[in-house]
Amino acid sequence: MEASERASAYGMLYTDQYQLTMAQLYYRMGLKDKLAQFDHFFRSYPDYGAHQAGYCINAGLAWLLDWMEKARFSAQDLDYLRGQKDGTGEQLFADDFLDWLRKDGSFEGITMSAIPEGRVVHPNVPLTVVQGPLAMAQILETSLLNHLNYQSLIATKAARIHQSGRGRLLLEFGLRRAQERGANAGARAALIGGADFTSNVGISHLLGYPPKGTHAHSMVQVFIALGGSELDAFQAYADVYPDDCLLLVDTVDTLHSGIPNAIKVFEGLRLKGHQPVGIRLDSGDLAYLSIRAAQQLNGAGFSDVSIVLSNQLDEMVILQILTQIEEEAPRYGVDPEALISRLVYGVGTRLITSQGDAALDGVYKLVAVQDGGDWVPAIKLSETPEKIPNPGHKRAWRIYDAREHAIADLLGLYDEDPRSMAPLLLRHPVDHSAQRELGQEAISWVEPLLVDILQDGRRVYELPSIETMREQREADLGRLYPGVRRIMNPHHYHVSLTQRLWELKQDLIAAAQ
Amino acid sequence: MEASERASAYGMLYTDQYQLTMAQLYYRMGLKDKLAQFDHFFRSYPDYGAHQAGYCINAGLAWLLDWMEKARFSAQDLDYLRGQKDGTGEQLFADDFLDWLRKDGSFEGITMSAIPEGRVVHPNVPLTVVQGPLAMAQILETSLLNHLNYQSLIATKAARIHQSGRGRLLLEFGLRRAQERGANAGARAALIGGADFTSNVGISHLLGYPPKGTHAHSMVQVFIALGGSELDAFQAYADVYPDDCLLLVDTVDTLHSGIPNAIKVFEGLRLKGHQPVGIRLDSGDLAYLSIRAAQQLNGAGFSDVSIVLSNQLDEMVILQILTQIEEEAPRYGVDPEALISRLVYGVGTRLITSQGDAALDGVYKLVAVQDGGDWVPAIKLSETPEKIPNPGHKRAWRIYDAREHAIADLLGLYDEDPRSMAPLLLRHPVDHSAQRELGQEAISWVEPLLVDILQDGRRVYELPSIETMREQREADLGRLYPGVRRIMNPHHYHVSLTQRLWELKQDLIAAAQ
Repeated sequence: MEASERASAYGMLYTDQYQLTMAQLYYRMGLKDKLAQFDHFFRSYPDYGAHQAGYCINAGLAWLLDWMEKARFSAQDLDYLRGQKDGTGEQLFADDFLDWLRKDGSFEGITMSAIPEGRVVHPNVPLTVVQGPLAMAQILETSLLNHLNYQSLIATKAARIHQSGRGRLLLEFGLRRAQERGANAGARAALIGGADFTSNVGISHLLGYPPKGTHAHSMVQVFIALGGSELDAFQAYADVYPDDCLLLVDTVDTLHSGIPNAIKVFEGLRLKGHQPVGIRLDSGDLAYLSIRAAQQLNGAGFSDVSIVLSNQLDEMVILQILTQIEEEAPRYGVDPEALISRLVYGVGTRLITSQGDAALDGVYKLVAVQDGGDWVPAIKLSETPEKIPNPGHKRAWRIYDAREHAIADLLGLYDEDPRSMAPLLLRHPVDHSAQRELGQEAISWVEPLLVDILQDGRRVYELPSIETMREQREADLGRLYPGVRRIMNPHHYHVSLTQRLWELKQDLIAAAQ
Repeated sequence: MEASERASAYGMLYTDQYQLTMAQLYYRMGLKDKLAQFDHFFRSYPDYGAHQAGYCINAGLAWLLDWMEKARFSAQDLDYLRGQKDGTGEQLFADDFLDWLRKDGSFEGITMSAIPEGRVVHPNVPLTVVQGPLAMAQILETSLLNHLNYQSLIATKAARIHQSGRGRLLLEFGLRRAQERGANAGARAALIGGADFTSNVGISHLLGYPPKGTHAHSMVQVFIALGGSELDAFQAYADVYPDDCLLLVDTVDTLHSGIPNAIKVFEGLRLKGHQPVGIRLDSGDLAYLSIRAAQQLNGAGFSDVSIVLSNQLDEMVILQILTQIEEEAPRYGVDPEALISRLVYGVGTRLITSQGDAALDGVYKLVAVQDGGDWVPAIKLSETPEKIPNPGHKRAWRIYDAREHAIADLLGLYDEDPRSMAPLLLRHPVDHSAQRELGQEAISWVEPLLVDILQDGRRVYELPSIETMREQREADLGRLYPGVRRIMNPHHYHVSLTQRLWELKQDLIAAAQ
């Protein structure tokens, strides 16, 4: 396989076939340049089975923009499309259409607004709003969803695990169990959502973080197979890395070999003026073993070294480990809070795959088409009222209460500004009888959520650093009520419509029926 | 972000940091060129919760080999590693080590055997056996697992869905919900495992298949928003694609608008001598709607057009749909078998993410090190006996019974050949009391599973086509007993050890304890 062929599979053809067949139809019908608006949003939070998300963390935009800026129909791409046959063996895509793709098949006509990466987001709120010529705005759908769904899914999982670990250091370890090259996007999303570092060297390089990792069981096995011992392996590691000595202690027997050997090596380092970093536990009852490890380490005067936990961790497992430590540690003379504050979490499979719910259901729906200079709202009916998208050209706002906590997101028509509405009426998007009126005194702040990203394909937005995204995330999470942040059965956050948008939606539904 | 930076993140640095810290330790300790053997295998079949796999389909090797052949430490990679700091701010990776990586940091010393892609495989059987100089064989671990775990996971899911759909046409639709760039590997694996085609244009190009897809709801919405109708949209589609006319009929109202409109358009096509392809149902009760669709289509003389089903399908949903059709179709005068035989399945999210169990637990374990020309077996103890890897330099075989059905995989030492053992003793890998003796009359065939792939980095294996992999898959599945293939609670397939391997394992465990 040639590298250029492989690259081509991540270029403009990184899309679904039906986007191209529709594009040719729009081209043929004279509709290709009709301005259309598509909203990208997700319908429901990830539901992991025994536990559910009450918020998501938005991520993926920078890499989508990167893809959009480079994507073009190459000569090779067009040759492939030219070779496709219809049901009678004739050319499926006509030469004039392919020629148009060659000349004008780029995203230079796209105008986009979006909610920035790192922000807390909720269902049915447009996270990305795309306006542009119908054919190319339609072709964009697949790659947009591919880039944004996955990173938001993983950023959300990382935020939950970080929260469950009480903000202690969180390391992303998932490259080996990730979905092939999606691993890099997943690691990036984890860094935005809650991970402090990753073991993935390449993505650390790309994003400017130091990667984390020390050694595996295999290193200890090599020394033993060659006639040496676990202690020899640890000593070798300390010799090569005297100031980064973190030892995996469960290859032979954690309590009777690993930890005592680590302590011996740490004592040697201390004598030479080096500061040992810690130990890692990768099997067994991690709560119990971390207590016994702390007990032994404290006894030897190493009460400050880290205890890294790994092995199928996720937010629920961590929650249980901490609960068990609080209950069991005092029995061994170990202070639970001191132990918890020295824990580090290495999380692999269950973070990078969002185990429990491996996809975010983000969609990209046509909500308006321009006709004669006016935006005509479009609607798609469904037997399930929750699945009817909110139509039209609109904006999204976040309402903060008097205590500066976010209490609702509000969707309104583009020419509406809820900052000047008093009292503010929030309509339930589906339930006709549910509505809520907020007086001025109940609102501290109404924040517009969407920012301008692209203006006719030109970037009008400075991409924030990962650090800025993390600060935004922490600020947003801090402004949620604890019930919404809760890991299990979270309290429901409201996403409402203005009266005018609500009426538009009802009118369109009635007309369509 | 520069394209070269992005590419670098998929090159040699597509690994975990600890592989590099271990490699430097081996370099420093004079162990870097010690020949080591690592076995890659998975420990358990995917468990989707309410249903479980009883077999896996092996996939991913070709792309791993592609990665290995190209991976080198670039000047940029080495600069990044040179810039990494230890705990005291000194250079973490020394210049002599980096210089060695620059000169010798490739997989040219690797010898590999593997079970070919498309084959049915089982837990604890080595799927890939890597022999090579310790440092580079260790660095390979992460990328090897990344490439093989995910594709085998998805090929397995595709095989199950294909089986559940009784072998009818299966289309992979998952690009938008996939794990970013992992989408292409996932689509490839789906094509190996059971999908006939994919909607993903780029990967179809790369692999030489025609991509599949027609139109989305948005096309119908555009026509309606501009003052037209669903029928206008369908007619436009038929005008542009008269010989590929497959219409999505659920944008407005499936039974009262979509199907009647499709029939009108199909009648027009028929008059002009074109053959309509079919309809697609993407919401609602797919079993009921497909019956009613068949009823209307049959009534209009279109009993041969396809009915494509999509919307959160997986093996269990398809199983239920078919059961319901068998029960309910006769009530509407529709022959269930005829209906089932015209169904096509479009499967997105739940295939590309292996919803229910989103990771295969493949591992890469050190099983032997060469010392003084001899292979010294290595072992890793565990409190869970099932997690103790089978040690040593060994081979894998498949045993077929008198009915030419596979009844067990057998692991033996490298110098053993079960073809010359009679009777053949199969030891249970963990349970000391469980064993089974097979006389010559009970065995029709003993097949070696591993084939030579790389000899000192040189490829000695001709990569088979996807078509060949599919044939192999069908042949292997046909040689499983139906109970093993079963989608729920499958019968347990045996993976056994020869007497000598079993004794070696017991001796090593005793010595290590």
